Amino acid sequence: MSFNKTPNDLAFERLTTAQPVLTGVRPALEAIPGMTKETLLTSGPTMDWEAYTGGQREALIGGALYEGLANDREQAIERLRTGTIRIRGCQELSAVGSLAGIYTASMAVFVVKNMTTGNIAYCNLYEGKAPQRLNYGVYNAEVHERLAYIDQQIAPLIGQAVDALGGIELLPIMKRALNMGDELHSRNTAASLLFSRALFPGLLKLNDAPRDALEALVEILAEDNYFFLRLSMAAAKCIADAAHDIPGSSIVTAMCFNCQGFAIRVSGLADEWITGPHAAVEAKLFEGHSPSEITWMGGESPITETVGLGGFAQAAAFPLQDYQGGEPMEMVSRNLALYDIVHGENSVFRIPFLKFRGTPTGIDVHKVVETGVLPQMDIGIAGSGGGQIGAGTVRAPMACFTAAAKKLATRPKEE
Amino acid sequence: MSFNKTPNDLAFERLTTAQPVLTGVRPALEAIPGMTKETLLTSGPTMDWEAYTGGQREALIGGALYEGLANDREQAIERLRTGTIRIRGCQELSAVGSLAGIYTASMAVFVVKNMTTGNIAYCNLYEGKAPQRLNYGVYNAEVHERLAYIDQQIAPLIGQAVDALGGIELLPIMKRALNMGDELHSRNTAASLLFSRALFPGLLKLNDAPRDALEALVEILAEDNYFFLRLSMAAAKCIADAAHDIPGSSIVTAMCFNCQGFAIRVSGLADEWITGPHAAVEAKLFEGHSPSEITWMGGESPITETVGLGGFAQAAAFPLQDYQGGEPMEMVSRNLALYDIVHGENSVFRIPFLKFRGTPTGIDVHKVVETGVLPQMDIGIAGSGGGQIGAGTVRAPMACFTAAAKKLATRPKEE
Repeated sequence: MSFNKTPNDLAFERLTTAQPVLTGVRPALEAIPGMTKETLLTSGPTMDWEAYTGGQREALIGGALYEGLANDREQAIERLRTGTIRIRGCQELSAVGSLAGIYTASMAVFVVKNMTTGNIAYCNLYEGKAPQRLNYGVYNAEVHERLAYIDQQIAPLIGQAVDALGGIELLPIMKRALNMGDELHSRNTAASLLFSRALFPGLLKLNDAPRDALEALVEILAEDNYFFLRLSMAAAKCIADAAHDIPGSSIVTAMCFNCQGFAIRVSGLADEWITGPHAAVEAKLFEGHSPSEITWMGGESPITETVGLGGFAQAAAFPLQDYQGGEPMEMVSRNLALYDIVHGENSVFRIPFLKFRGTPTGIDVHKVVETGVLPQMDIGIAGSGGGQIGAGTVRAPMACFTAAAKKLATRPKEE
Repeated sequence: MSFNKTPNDLAFERLTTAQPVLTGVRPALEAIPGMTKETLLTSGPTMDWEAYTGGQREALIGGALYEGLANDREQAIERLRTGTIRIRGCQELSAVGSLAGIYTASMAVFVVKNMTTGNIAYCNLYEGKAPQRLNYGVYNAEVHERLAYIDQQIAPLIGQAVDALGGIELLPIMKRALNMGDELHSRNTAASLLFSRALFPGLLKLNDAPRDALEALVEILAEDNYFFLRLSMAAAKCIADAAHDIPGSSIVTAMCFNCQGFAIRVSGLADEWITGPHAAVEAKLFEGHSPSEITWMGGESPITETVGLGGFAQAAAFPLQDYQGGEPMEMVSRNLALYDIVHGENSVFRIPFLKFRGTPTGIDVHKVVETGVLPQMDIGIAGSGGGQIGAGTVRAPMACFTAAAKKLATRPKEE
């Protein structure tokens, strides 16, 4: 078999044999190689300060203030402009950002290691269910207080419990969650419960932790069923990175966007991002919001789709109808169409309704171009006024794939 | 509206407005009115000792020995024969039995109260995942040890946590579990997690409980995802009893079986059981077992189907394919057919794949007879050698429904 293994076979194998394990929860500065006190990470390919607009710009300013890198908004802008605060795209440092995706040095991050290949990925913690949060482009006293509470109270307790348990394997949780109505992007209800369940014995081992702090943590772990998303993202990043940088491979290893547009990364195109316009969206907005408010402020959670989850596992998550719209049989047929643009069927992530067929996994740039079928993603929708205003499915723009195919064709053949 | 409310409307209303709450965990003798030290409860309508055969007979003997009502097997048989140990059907005392369904005085039971009507129902605790257990007709030293551990260590801790929380509402857990792949009879994976999650804060309040005992409990709550079944059964019994004994109503308020055959109870036929032959079964047996081993040793878990769960919510639980066989679209069409034999659609229990349509609820004896569609149930399959050998779907026998229809027709009209 291995004699005939193509670069895409290898990428697919890496995608389906990764074993992401949560090994710790630590401040970004301590955990992430390359992070500095004066660095802010944000979603999408790195851009110059001037290119950041709207909510993503606001989030960067908020991040600088949260970290104490500036005394006020004006100083923050000045430092960002002059580069004494450095902006980098999350994924340059193997981190992955939710919406605006701001990381500052003191923010706690999940550290997820791929036990198969040894690579490590990071994601910071869910801010909670308030519509106004830093990752949705809002920074104020309440947002600050919540972030500080997560970083200083919640994250350390989780970290201690994870240490007490010697790490938590994420794949068994993710695999089971797909049997329980999650697709692990816009629905993480079961996974959040399964993670709480896995963490609880570790919490019981923390003899010095005050009971009320543990009770507050247990509350947060399941308050609105979104807690696991950041772990799903870190696991997906860890899985996708293992398949990256295989010469000759046309498999997509990241999809994300910033305020300027959509971008993909392809295994055989090294670390270059192929950018395009914004994705096309079909959204279900929360009461009182209109489509004109929809705005793009970044987002790297489509890393989950890159590894066969989210929109690629929609037929596992019929309850999403309520949240993002769509009817069950539409969800099924959209999911089925995605098998035409991938390298294979996942051997770990499976869809009960499709008789446990593996999810479509390993988006092949050439197949997208040939079939015209665009990767679908399940995402949260940000509003121009800041905050989340709904959820929906989006389609990656074809421009990214045609450009990637062209680059792959002109790339010198290796071997 | 209420002017025109028929007896079946009233029964349906009771089925869909019940609010079962777990109010405590206590020994059967203390919790259940009518229970005595010398009483054994078992599944199905009460019969004479001689009528109990096979696994159910073995389970009764085992129950007598477990409770210390006899020094040995021969003495147990003698006391059961002469009636100094009294046998009663579980449901006479508002309890509900899993498989053989043995209750003894010292066994811990969940106490579930319907906050709408005030009636109370009981179910004892899951014995664990060992194939050999008392409820599957086996009694030996290991079975004894496990039962004693549950009754003396596990149940009291759960009881204390429930007390610390002031009770646990079961309906929100059940409703959410249907969005997470459970049908709450043969699949209770999500509900067991949700119940664990609800119990955690109570466990954290038990300052005197040893940590290792709490860790062991947490392990048991989710070890094989069946823990919640007994709570689902107690809740269903509590719901069904609220709809019972409405003169003129042809709604089924219990379905169960013992070693001799199937039986139903109908709201308008008071406490009479309408018996018939055994149900017809389509089973998926565990590796190494054959259909000739399938045996009937009792079972009252079809109380869940009586309230619109289990086989009546199969399209919510596609992962059951693995456990009991059947394909997704078959599950859907079998589920859809059941709408023809019920009074209405549940307003609480809903099926995501059917666009959140309420589960078919309130089996109407007359509609079963008219349509020929038989209620389907998801059950565990017992083997003649004792223990569980598989799982499957069964169909209630028509004889029970034709007999019930006849009895309803000859019953004096009430007003």
